[in-house]
Amino acid sequence: MDESREHVVDRLIDLLHQAAARDVELLVYPELALTTFFPRWWVEDRADADHWFETQMPGQATKRLFDEAAHLGIGFSLGYAELTPDGHHYNTQILVDRTGQTIGKYRKVHIPGHADHQPWRKFQHLERYYFEESPDGFPVWRGFGGIVGMMICNDRRWPETYRVMGMQGVELILCGYNTPINYAPDPSQDILQGFHNALVMQAGAYQNGTWVIGVAKGGNEEGVESLAQSCIIAPSGQIVAQALTTGDELITATCDLDWCKRYKGTLFDFGTYRRPEVYGIITGQKGVVGPPPAADA
Amino acid sequence: MDESREHVVDRLIDLLHQAAARDVELLVYPELALTTFFPRWWVEDRADADHWFETQMPGQATKRLFDEAAHLGIGFSLGYAELTPDGHHYNTQILVDRTGQTIGKYRKVHIPGHADHQPWRKFQHLERYYFEESPDGFPVWRGFGGIVGMMICNDRRWPETYRVMGMQGVELILCGYNTPINYAPDPSQDILQGFHNALVMQAGAYQNGTWVIGVAKGGNEEGVESLAQSCIIAPSGQIVAQALTTGDELITATCDLDWCKRYKGTLFDFGTYRRPEVYGIITGQKGVVGPPPAADA
Repeated sequence: MDESREHVVDRLIDLLHQAAARDVELLVYPELALTTFFPRWWVEDRADADHWFETQMPGQATKRLFDEAAHLGIGFSLGYAELTPDGHHYNTQILVDRTGQTIGKYRKVHIPGHADHQPWRKFQHLERYYFEESPDGFPVWRGFGGIVGMMICNDRRWPETYRVMGMQGVELILCGYNTPINYAPDPSQDILQGFHNALVMQAGAYQNGTWVIGVAKGGNEEGVESLAQSCIIAPSGQIVAQALTTGDELITATCDLDWCKRYKGTLFDFGTYRRPEVYGIITGQKGVVGPPPAADA
Repeated sequence: MDESREHVVDRLIDLLHQAAARDVELLVYPELALTTFFPRWWVEDRADADHWFETQMPGQATKRLFDEAAHLGIGFSLGYAELTPDGHHYNTQILVDRTGQTIGKYRKVHIPGHADHQPWRKFQHLERYYFEESPDGFPVWRGFGGIVGMMICNDRRWPETYRVMGMQGVELILCGYNTPINYAPDPSQDILQGFHNALVMQAGAYQNGTWVIGVAKGGNEEGVESLAQSCIIAPSGQIVAQALTTGDELITATCDLDWCKRYKGTLFDFGTYRRPEVYGIITGQKGVVGPPPAADA
């Protein structure tokens, strides 16, 4: 159901109190945490969806969260739909330090799904209708004793996401996500959702020598089952903590950012081993260009 | 031990006969299949290592392999050290069609290890002493009913490797490798060698919707334990066949190249979803450039 922002903030604050009891420094919430995953709904008039977007952060409903987090000295990262003063719509995640100051804002780069109503689907995935592609890429910020970046949901499936941050020395990537179990364009992937989720984040962590924190909504939301399986992944690629339930659940780990050096300083010493002079096609074109047909074809 | 090329070719032909009995179309052999993994040895005079390199392919020892494969109608891919007529040294892998014609040659792009003698190591990893970095990148070829690419060992750890081929529509990537269990610069990674090996190839397969065939030497070679764990990975990222032993062992799978479309045509439809305009740093710089120091640092 589309529960009120006030009720959602109650749940977020409850998790904050659990985190305080475990001496947590940084708490990560999922993508679009304040509302339902509304891209599952088609509305004829795009403006009728604006009530799902935040025009201020903190706003009326979220100020309590910022205040309580600052009071407890816990930093956090929160995903929400953002409507800017000049009318842009983004899928956004922010990083808030332990004093309640917003020190980073990330807007989703890789927007999945479709922009048109597709009634054959059991539910829509209209992210390309509701959200613009961020032009800002993947910045990183200094905070929490290291270099921190963010990504949102589908971004995590793209190796470029991690690499752009890896090239900036990222040590901790925070990722909120919502992943429906059912993937309508190819249901053979449904049973692999958990595997794919872990696979891409583990590979991105290892190949860039960074911690990755993936945080999901879980369970049934408006009739759609979501993956859950939030996890904390070390620079070795190992999952060091994982959610067991599909409900509100806090998982924690001690993330030693110095562990990143074991990978960044050895086989993934980019300055020694990378070969950008033969990678040109990665940035030089958007889609696939295959080889010429075979001579005998 | 450094067994003779003739003896190695006997073993390769034996595998070819096993493959014929299973109706195999394409057989992949490991990296540096014809010799020992000689980068573990330091020689003062670089030219004293040239006896490990092939100046012709097929050459005197390997002609039997080409002839027998063509006779059986089996294509193959073979890794070896290549010394070119103009004196270049490459770590090379070729693709030979079912008539015995060489239709593709790949030279290793990502050369790991070191170029200087490091006596503190139990064994050397002198690939950067013996091999030049290929300037040719990752071409693909039409063959075996699809689009085929190659990579060698350390290449498989780099997402750019798969992506450069993925941008060309690759459906089948053939990878020979030699991975010592002991990683001297950070032995905490030793116990993770098998995990990392599978992780990077599974992620590369999934993220590009391609089959990946990883083929290793296994067991003890001149006192060094190697990983083995050859595997065949589907475009879903699933391992559909894996070597069980560390000896000469044939594993097979039916690789339906049409399965690639389930990924290339849906969530990894590059032409729709990629964002090269924000990937510039991947090709624009070689090493890490971190953010400016924090204002209060």
